[in-house]
Amino acid sequence: MARRVAVVGAGVSGLASIKCCLEEGLQPTCFERSHDLGGLWRFTEHVEEGRASLYKSVVSNSCKEMSCYSDFPFPEDYPNYVPNSQFLEYLKMYANRFNLLKCIQFETTVCSVTKCPDFATSGQWEVVTLHEGKQSSAIFDAVMVCTGYLTTPYLPLDSFPGIHTFKGQYFHSRQYKYPDMFKDKRVLVVGMGNSGTDIAVEASHVAKKVFLSTTGGAWVMSRISDSGNPWDMVFTTRFRNMLRNALPTPVASWLLARKMNSWFNHANYGLVPEDRVQLREPVINDDLPGCIITGRVQIKPSIREVRENSVLFSHAPREEPIDIIVFATGYTFAFPFLDESVVKVEAGQASLYKYVFPAHLQKPTLAVIGLIKPFGSMIPTGEVQARWAVQVLKGLNTLPPASLRVKEVEERKQNKPSGFGLCYCKALQSDYIAYVDELLTGINAKPRLFALLLTDPRLALAIFFGPCSSYQFRLTGPGKWEGARNAILTQWDRTLKATKTRTVQESPPSFESFLKLLSFLALLVALFLIFL
Amino acid sequence: MARRVAVVGAGVSGLASIKCCLEEGLQPTCFERSHDLGGLWRFTEHVEEGRASLYKSVVSNSCKEMSCYSDFPFPEDYPNYVPNSQFLEYLKMYANRFNLLKCIQFETTVCSVTKCPDFATSGQWEVVTLHEGKQSSAIFDAVMVCTGYLTTPYLPLDSFPGIHTFKGQYFHSRQYKYPDMFKDKRVLVVGMGNSGTDIAVEASHVAKKVFLSTTGGAWVMSRISDSGNPWDMVFTTRFRNMLRNALPTPVASWLLARKMNSWFNHANYGLVPEDRVQLREPVINDDLPGCIITGRVQIKPSIREVRENSVLFSHAPREEPIDIIVFATGYTFAFPFLDESVVKVEAGQASLYKYVFPAHLQKPTLAVIGLIKPFGSMIPTGEVQARWAVQVLKGLNTLPPASLRVKEVEERKQNKPSGFGLCYCKALQSDYIAYVDELLTGINAKPRLFALLLTDPRLALAIFFGPCSSYQFRLTGPGKWEGARNAILTQWDRTLKATKTRTVQESPPSFESFLKLLSFLALLVALFLIFL
Repeated sequence: MARRVAVVGAGVSGLASIKCCLEEGLQPTCFERSHDLGGLWRFTEHVEEGRASLYKSVVSNSCKEMSCYSDFPFPEDYPNYVPNSQFLEYLKMYANRFNLLKCIQFETTVCSVTKCPDFATSGQWEVVTLHEGKQSSAIFDAVMVCTGYLTTPYLPLDSFPGIHTFKGQYFHSRQYKYPDMFKDKRVLVVGMGNSGTDIAVEASHVAKKVFLSTTGGAWVMSRISDSGNPWDMVFTTRFRNMLRNALPTPVASWLLARKMNSWFNHANYGLVPEDRVQLREPVINDDLPGCIITGRVQIKPSIREVRENSVLFSHAPREEPIDIIVFATGYTFAFPFLDESVVKVEAGQASLYKYVFPAHLQKPTLAVIGLIKPFGSMIPTGEVQARWAVQVLKGLNTLPPASLRVKEVEERKQNKPSGFGLCYCKALQSDYIAYVDELLTGINAKPRLFALLLTDPRLALAIFFGPCSSYQFRLTGPGKWEGARNAILTQWDRTLKATKTRTVQESPPSFESFLKLLSFLALLVALFLIFL
Repeated sequence: MARRVAVVGAGVSGLASIKCCLEEGLQPTCFERSHDLGGLWRFTEHVEEGRASLYKSVVSNSCKEMSCYSDFPFPEDYPNYVPNSQFLEYLKMYANRFNLLKCIQFETTVCSVTKCPDFATSGQWEVVTLHEGKQSSAIFDAVMVCTGYLTTPYLPLDSFPGIHTFKGQYFHSRQYKYPDMFKDKRVLVVGMGNSGTDIAVEASHVAKKVFLSTTGGAWVMSRISDSGNPWDMVFTTRFRNMLRNALPTPVASWLLARKMNSWFNHANYGLVPEDRVQLREPVINDDLPGCIITGRVQIKPSIREVRENSVLFSHAPREEPIDIIVFATGYTFAFPFLDESVVKVEAGQASLYKYVFPAHLQKPTLAVIGLIKPFGSMIPTGEVQARWAVQVLKGLNTLPPASLRVKEVEERKQNKPSGFGLCYCKALQSDYIAYVDELLTGINAKPRLFALLLTDPRLALAIFFGPCSSYQFRLTGPGKWEGARNAILTQWDRTLKATKTRTVQESPPSFESFLKLLSFLALLVALFLIFL
C-alpha cells in the first residue's frame, strides 16, 4: 500500500490531491515550482516559465456552485462567476481550512520522476527536485502529477504563410496581460477559443479595429442562460444529460444548434461551426455578439496570407491593414520530468486509462490528475479523479489488466462516435456527468437516486432535475460530507444572494386592472364563441 | 406664406429641417453655435457650454435601418449599431449629398428670438445672433428650433443627504468622457438610464468596484433580439404595435415583462421596475447582466445618506466605501433665447401642440423639432416633424384653433392612461408608430396599406409585418422618394451584410445520419403506437 505520495503542482488539482491523500491517511508532499499556490488562477504581471499565464480580466466560465470543491462551497456573497483574484482567495481559504500548506514545498521544481529499480515489485518512484539551486532526491510510493495542460503554448507558425515578413507585432495569447497595448491599433486575433474571444472583446474597447479569425467557427454561449440563470446550472443536469444522450447524434446536434441560434443566428454573425456533428466545446462569452453587431469586432475566415503590414483572408479580396496579431491557437501539454516510456504524448493525447493512469505501467502508482476537458467544471472533475486515484494507490480499488486498459485507451483515441448524444470529438473532451459517474461508481460514491427517491424524495429530485453540482458526489462513499445535503438544497439561494442586491415590494394588482383584465377575457370568450 | 426660415442648431433635427425647407422651396438659414455640424453626435474631448456632450464609447441604440434619414440609408458596410464617430460621418455625407452646408452659419449663437411688432398679422420673428463677438439681427418668416433636450443637466443634489460632506469626486454624467479616471477606484453611478448603465459597465472594466444605484429600476433590453436581429427591427413593426395597442394595459405590461424576463429575471438581478404599469423607456444595454453575474457591477437601491468617504443605501445596513460618484440623473431642457410667453417649460414639459407648435401662439410660425422621446429612433421622428411643420409654415396645412390645441396639450400633460397598450408615462415619451402616423396623415404621406396590398402585396406585407423603417414614410406624399420601395425590400440584406463576414458552405446531411434519423423516428412512432 502506498504511504508517501509526491504531488507535482499546487494548483486546483494539486490541492485536491493533497487533501484526498490526507483524508485517506497517506503522506503527501507537494512540490510547487513557484512561491505560492493557485496554479493557473494566480495572476502575475509577467509570464513565468512552466506556469500557466492568465490575463488580468479572466473570469471563471463555470459558476461558483458548479466549480467549487465538493465539500467547500464558495462564500455566498461571491459573484456567480468568480474573477481570478477572488478565485485565488477561495483556493487559499480551502488550503487553510484543510491545513494543506504544511504539505507544500514552494520554489521546488521537479526535475525528474523515474521508476525505482525494483519498480515491478515496489511500484516506487525516485523524485529529483531542485530548491534554491540544490538538487535532492527522495523515494515515494506514488506520484500524482497535477501540472495541467495550459503551460505549453501551441503556435503552428507554418500554417500562416508570410508571417515572417510581417512587420507588426505578433505573439501567442499566453503573453497577453492587459488591453492597453491595443490602444488605437488594428488588431487581429487568430483562433476562437475562450481566450481568443475574450481578448478580441477586450481589445475592442480600446483598439481602432479588431478582427477575429476563425477557420472552424464555434457555438458561442452566454454565462446567462434561460431567465438569467448561470448556464452550467441549467445545462449540466442529470435529466437533460440523459435526454441528450438518448437522442441520435444528428437530433441532439440539431437541438443544440437550435438552442444556440436562439440567442443569435450564428450564420448571420459569421460564427457558424463548419462541422455541426463533431462538436468542439462551445465558447463562453457574454459580449461577443454585442461587439459584432456594433462593428467593434469583425469575424473573418482563415488567413490566406500575411504581408508586411496587412493580412489577406480566405475567399475575400480585401487586404486588411493589421498592426498586431494575437495567436490564440491554444496549448499542448508535456511531462518534461517523465520518461516517454511512462507517459507518451502524441497528437494532443496521452495513453491514460480513464484519463488518469498510464495504461501500460505494471504498477498503477502514478496518476495524472486534471488532464481532461470536461464540458463542465475543472475543479470537481479533478477532485473526483483524485479521490478515485487515491483509492487505487491505496490498493482498495484495482484496475483491470494492462491489456484491457490499453484497449480502452486506444478506442477512446480513435474516437468513434456512438451515434447517440452530443459528440465532443477533440482530444481530452468528454461528457462531464458520464465521466464523473464512472469514477464515482468505482469508489462507491455515486448518489443512489432510486434509494433516495424513497427516503428523501426532495433531495432525489434536486439531484436529478437540478444542477449536477459536486456536493452530490459527497453524499456517500469515502470522503462523505455531512453538509452535502444542505449544500445541494441551498445552492439556488447562494446563487440569488449574489445578484439580488435590490428588492422591490411587489404591489398586488389593483382592483381596476383586475376588472379590465376580466372584461378582456370576456371579450376573448365572446369572440371565440362568435367565430366558432 | 413663410419664405425665410431660421433654423436653430445643426444637429440631426436641424439638418432634416434645412433639407425639408430646401425641398419645399423655402430659404433656410441655420445658426450653429459650434464650428461644425452633428450636434450631440460630434464627440469633443472637452464639454462645451450649451452643447450635448458624448462619452467616447457611445454607440447608437437604434440600428442603422431604423435610425437613418428616410431617403438616405447608411452605407451597407456600416455596422448595425453605429458608433458615434461613424454616425457623424454619416451626417456629413447627408449634408454633402443634399448640399446643406451652404445654409449653415457656424460659430453663430442665437441670442434671442422675439416676435416682430406686427406678429399677429405677419407671424414674423426677429432673430438676434452673435458671431465673432458681433451681434446682428434679421427678420425671418418662421423659426425652427432644433436644440434638443440633452444640453441642460439635471442634478437634484438636495435629494442626496450629506453629499456636501463627501470628500471624493462627484459630477454629472455629462462630464464623463473616458473610463481611465475610474482605474482602481470604487465607483458609484446614480441613475439607470442609458448613460448611467453604459458608464457603470465601462467603469467595471477598470474600476476596483462599481455600484449602480437605481430607485425605480428598469427593464434592460439587449440590442440583440430574437435570433440576433436588431431589437428595433423586431419590436417596431406595425403588426406588433397593433397587437400591443389592442391589449389592455395590464396584459400588454405583463407580456412585456415576460419578454424582458426571458433574457434574465429582472427581480433576481435587482433591476425589476418598481412600477410595472407606468413604464419608463427600457434601457438598451448588451453587457449589464454579464457585469452583474460576474460581480463587476452591483445593483443598489436608492441612496440613504452620503458620508465623507462612503455611501449608505436604503434598506441596507452596510456602508460602502466610495471614491467617485457619477450622477446620471438625466437632463432637462430650456430655450434661453425664447421668451416664456412663447414656450414655457414646466416639470419637463412644454406646451407644444403635437410636440411641435407652441399651443397658444396666434400664428404657427415657430416649430420645435426633435423635442420628443419616441421609443424608437430620433432621426426619422424629427424628420417627419420637420416635413409636417414645413407644410404648416407654408400654409398648406392648417392647425386647429388655439383652444383645441391647448386642450390637446393639457390632456397629454395629465397623461391619463387609455387603458390599452403600453403606457409610457414620462414627459416626452410617446408611441413611435402612432405619433409618426399622426403627422404623416397630416401631410398625406402615410403608406396606403390596403391599396398597396392590391397593387404591390410584397411591399405591403413588408411594411406591415416587417420593421417600420423610415423609408415607408417616403413612398407617397410631399418629399416622395423613388428609392423608398427598394430600400424597404433590401433592408434585411444591408443588415446581414454588416455581420455575415464569414460564410460556411452547409454540407448536406450524410446518408448515414439520414438513416439514423429515420430509425429514430420509426422508434418514436412505435413507442407512440405501443403506449396509445
